[in-house]
Amino acid sequence: MNILVVGLGLIGASIAKTLKKNTDHYVLGWNRTASVSRRALEDGAVDETGELSELIPKADITFINIYEEGIVPFVLENRALFKEGSIVADSCGIKTKLCRRLEKEQLGFYFIGCHPMAGREVSGYENSLPTLFDGASFICTPTNAPKSKTDTLVELAKQMGFERTVVTTPEHHDEMIAFTSQIAHVLACSYVLSPLAPMHDGFSAGSYRDVSRVARINADMWSELFVANKEPLIREIDDLTANLEKFKAAISSEDTDALKELMRRANKIKEEIG
Amino acid sequence: MNILVVGLGLIGASIAKTLKKNTDHYVLGWNRTASVSRRALEDGAVDETGELSELIPKADITFINIYEEGIVPFVLENRALFKEGSIVADSCGIKTKLCRRLEKEQLGFYFIGCHPMAGREVSGYENSLPTLFDGASFICTPTNAPKSKTDTLVELAKQMGFERTVVTTPEHHDEMIAFTSQIAHVLACSYVLSPLAPMHDGFSAGSYRDVSRVARINADMWSELFVANKEPLIREIDDLTANLEKFKAAISSEDTDALKELMRRANKIKEEIG
Repeated sequence: MNILVVGLGLIGASIAKTLKKNTDHYVLGWNRTASVSRRALEDGAVDETGELSELIPKADITFINIYEEGIVPFVLENRALFKEGSIVADSCGIKTKLCRRLEKEQLGFYFIGCHPMAGREVSGYENSLPTLFDGASFICTPTNAPKSKTDTLVELAKQMGFERTVVTTPEHHDEMIAFTSQIAHVLACSYVLSPLAPMHDGFSAGSYRDVSRVARINADMWSELFVANKEPLIREIDDLTANLEKFKAAISSEDTDALKELMRRANKIKEEIG
Repeated sequence: MNILVVGLGLIGASIAKTLKKNTDHYVLGWNRTASVSRRALEDGAVDETGELSELIPKADITFINIYEEGIVPFVLENRALFKEGSIVADSCGIKTKLCRRLEKEQLGFYFIGCHPMAGREVSGYENSLPTLFDGASFICTPTNAPKSKTDTLVELAKQMGFERTVVTTPEHHDEMIAFTSQIAHVLACSYVLSPLAPMHDGFSAGSYRDVSRVARINADMWSELFVANKEPLIREIDDLTANLEKFKAAISSEDTDALKELMRRANKIKEEIG
């Protein structure tokens, strides 16, 4: 297949490098800043680059790896260029708004939302890796595409070396991501905003390090993703705050039995599910 | 020096093993369950074991490694046995209540609160390690002991291989621990208590793993330590909840500028201080 990777930042270029490393597909690449496309070509991360108007019509699968708010405009502006029956996918972290919007369009190709679940605390082409997705999940959230098209993407993800593939609805994806990823970032940021954080040196060990790690965050990208997933994320913040209040009430009243019960439940969940 | 280690669980036995590995001091060991003392002797983790009434009078330094609520009774019950002018230290994670209580007693020896800052998700002699304190901080919170005695402990900690030593008040120790350790555990537990936690498989990556790690917790020990550090810990819970509410308000009103500002501040703190 010809696979076009649009946007050669951290995720896009890692997709291109993974395709080159683990599959025999022909990889086309395009980036808004042309110097990045040239560098990807020189590095062998892609087989071909050029103008979008030449690249898009050749692609059996197009992966769009740009900021969430740019994806719908990109697909609609280029709708006449995509090959009939081809697959157009993206890699953005929130799926409902995007997938339900594009589902309404009559398109000659199939849009399937995707989320290759990996990231780094750094961004850009220079930080992309052919091993970024080792051990990672690849999630598809098809809406109106036929099963055969989703199967093609899932098969490709397996060829690329993703450890897990999951097919689900955009809505279930987004509520799970609110829990596994977004609230973890909100929580890490809220934690380091404590007035005591700047004085922690000498008083911290592994728990501070681990819980605060993802406070290193791309503020522009994540603020957009938080707003795009408003309702599920607010539900998670409310759940978290309610649990913190339970701890606070038990500590205030020195109710060690209630504290033990809360911690035993948490401990059991963590031991059972990892 | 003769150093007595009372309580050969995870922390006590790791102290004994570290003393044997990195210093030339003579190590006496005692555990409530005698079979553990014998095993420690067989393993070479201690040089001698026996009855408390024989061991305590020989010790220049005694490290007490038992649950927080047992420390004051242990010191007072055995007060007649400790060598005149010797140092009695402990390793419990919260210091104010303990140190201010023992400060009131007329003792023929010097009690100095200590906190070797390391731990594992598992406990007991069988999980103790001679390398547990590699890279760790050793904190002393002297109250009425002369500086020379604190210096002796700090020097010993350096010989043992602790990377950092900190001397501070019990109160400052406890507020910092509320931030670096206790709230991190409260937060990890509150996180995994979300109804979505049991379904996370396939939807999680590094952020879930890191933020939730310390939800594996010894409920009995930590409930006691939380209550012993009630006021500072409640202040941290309140700060955290207030920050979460700021995120919630910004997400609710789709105020991406406010979100970016919160995340940029968190990001900057994390980049500056680690």
